[in-house]
Amino acid sequence: MAATTPNHSLTVSGWAAHDSSGKISSYTFKRRENGVNDVTIKILYCGICHTDLHYAKDEWGITMYPVVPGHEIVGVITKTGSDVKGFKEGDRVGVGCLAASCLDCEHCKTDQENYCDKLQFVYNGIFWDGSITYGGYSQIFVADYRYVVHIPESLPMDAAAPLLCAGITVFSPLKDHDLVASPGKKIGVVGLGGLGHIAVKFGKAFGHHVTVISTSPSKEAEAKQHLGADEFILSSNPTQLQGARRSLDFILDTVSAEHALVPMLELLKVNGTLFIVGAPDKPLQLPAFPLIFGKRSVKGGIIGGIKETQEMMNVCAKYNITSDIELITPDRINEAMERLAKNDVRYRFVIDIAAATSNN
Amino acid sequence: MAATTPNHSLTVSGWAAHDSSGKISSYTFKRRENGVNDVTIKILYCGICHTDLHYAKDEWGITMYPVVPGHEIVGVITKTGSDVKGFKEGDRVGVGCLAASCLDCEHCKTDQENYCDKLQFVYNGIFWDGSITYGGYSQIFVADYRYVVHIPESLPMDAAAPLLCAGITVFSPLKDHDLVASPGKKIGVVGLGGLGHIAVKFGKAFGHHVTVISTSPSKEAEAKQHLGADEFILSSNPTQLQGARRSLDFILDTVSAEHALVPMLELLKVNGTLFIVGAPDKPLQLPAFPLIFGKRSVKGGIIGGIKETQEMMNVCAKYNITSDIELITPDRINEAMERLAKNDVRYRFVIDIAAATSNN
Repeated sequence: MAATTPNHSLTVSGWAAHDSSGKISSYTFKRRENGVNDVTIKILYCGICHTDLHYAKDEWGITMYPVVPGHEIVGVITKTGSDVKGFKEGDRVGVGCLAASCLDCEHCKTDQENYCDKLQFVYNGIFWDGSITYGGYSQIFVADYRYVVHIPESLPMDAAAPLLCAGITVFSPLKDHDLVASPGKKIGVVGLGGLGHIAVKFGKAFGHHVTVISTSPSKEAEAKQHLGADEFILSSNPTQLQGARRSLDFILDTVSAEHALVPMLELLKVNGTLFIVGAPDKPLQLPAFPLIFGKRSVKGGIIGGIKETQEMMNVCAKYNITSDIELITPDRINEAMERLAKNDVRYRFVIDIAAATSNN
Repeated sequence: MAATTPNHSLTVSGWAAHDSSGKISSYTFKRRENGVNDVTIKILYCGICHTDLHYAKDEWGITMYPVVPGHEIVGVITKTGSDVKGFKEGDRVGVGCLAASCLDCEHCKTDQENYCDKLQFVYNGIFWDGSITYGGYSQIFVADYRYVVHIPESLPMDAAAPLLCAGITVFSPLKDHDLVASPGKKIGVVGLGGLGHIAVKFGKAFGHHVTVISTSPSKEAEAKQHLGADEFILSSNPTQLQGARRSLDFILDTVSAEHALVPMLELLKVNGTLFIVGAPDKPLQLPAFPLIFGKRSVKGGIIGGIKETQEMMNVCAKYNITSDIELITPDRINEAMERLAKNDVRYRFVIDIAAATSNN
């Protein structure tokens, strides 16, 4: 495909981290010109995912500097290639984590590009032409249309941005376990952050009894009053844990920090599943007994396919679900990153990219 | 139920461990008389499961001495209670791990007594009347008929004994994942011991491509030539592991010793399941990335329900599957236990209980 990939001659203003200090500063770089399968997007907003922090600081040891983070990208199409289908100039669109996949394997062919073995991410990835990908902390994005979704008119663009990663990451496991269209289950959500708060909204919208499990007593009122959760369990309280033993059908674990799985496993009914979407650096401790005596599963998953992401967007429009956000101007990215490192955000920072011209 | 439980006045000769040395010696004890729901069984053979060793030596810290081990029990019915259905004097029968359950919960009512929260085991358990249960290292057993299965006529009683625990433990996950009646999958079996060798036999009988994964190079010839496995992977060989990456639909992990999960997880296709039936003492190390990037599951399970155990026995008769055994007289139990601790058995010791009269 390299032969058909256009030159990288499009000058773009953005923001990048240049070393493991993780400090973000202005960065002008080149993107490829709009190819036959590409759409060029004027970025309006980009969410700040915790993953951005990991990459900016090279916490996983795989960062290629300078890195332009951002995989919760929304904007408006300004150009379309000749082979693009389903998108036109002026469309409100979103791009999530995926920049490329092989388009040919069983996963790509069954709308599970997110599990393609040749998957490449929208930043710190290697595109088909060998170039390093740069993410959404920038004013213009060029995306292959096969990794782009429409943002329904009824959704505000800024609060919809986090759906592209946080939203699909929690939607996909729910769909995979038949929890989108089959109400009345008892589900748990571990961690009430960017992912968790959307998971609670989905759980309630889909008609389930939702229990939030957290280490922070202060989250109880928030979970119940603001997000409509039915129950709250403090994961450090043995009495509460014992009282809810074998009560949940499904638990979505959104916590990226190291944490114990046993209390969660014991909350599951026989045949229940603990679905992990956070990715702690160190291995989790998995004792065999709670699995064995309850025929329980620990499962993992990463984001979702593109078709599924569009489906999620449409479901969000139907139920009027978006992320709770704190909108910031680009000059406050570093401040936001620092607060994010302390989980001090309610619940997602979103960068107002269009505010860049005057402020940065 | 205590009111209807008969007195414990039946004198039985058996073999017990009396302290954490684990040494087994003759032991005469009392069982309950045959109740209305009971069958009395003259024990012919009893398998030696690794669990017996754990209990004999109190390795899990829960042994109530003296402990009469044994949960792979086969024999002939000598007496039936008035309410017993489906069994008569002279029937060849087997009893596995289960002595009692609540008979009333959703699991008991759906033939999953093995996941009843009030489950009690055939030894070191607490029966309905409060008495401690004693297992099959003994000449007579009294069992509630609801935890008894028929041994098909075509199966030899001695080699059928291990099916009651080792057999059902590997059959149930295969059935649960639709691998009994749907041939053509690629399955892996980790560990080639008492459980693993039966799993390979099942896998081949059910029409699958079977890969044995082991730490012992010496097992390759055995796995392929004797048991008919299609492939062998040495789990310490990175080249072999890499070559088989993302190739298996399902892996049954039968290893009780501490071991790494990552190599096995990477062998699984997207959406694959690693099913754990061994129970290492210490928690397994579960890194999130191989789960997340492959939508993989780690699941556990314990034995199977009684109806399923009978189904397994019938399937074994159909395919002529039994355990490979080393038959020993009761006076050699300690020697067998010592060899078992070193995994020096091919593949299951079975005690010839009827040989006791003359030898012990």
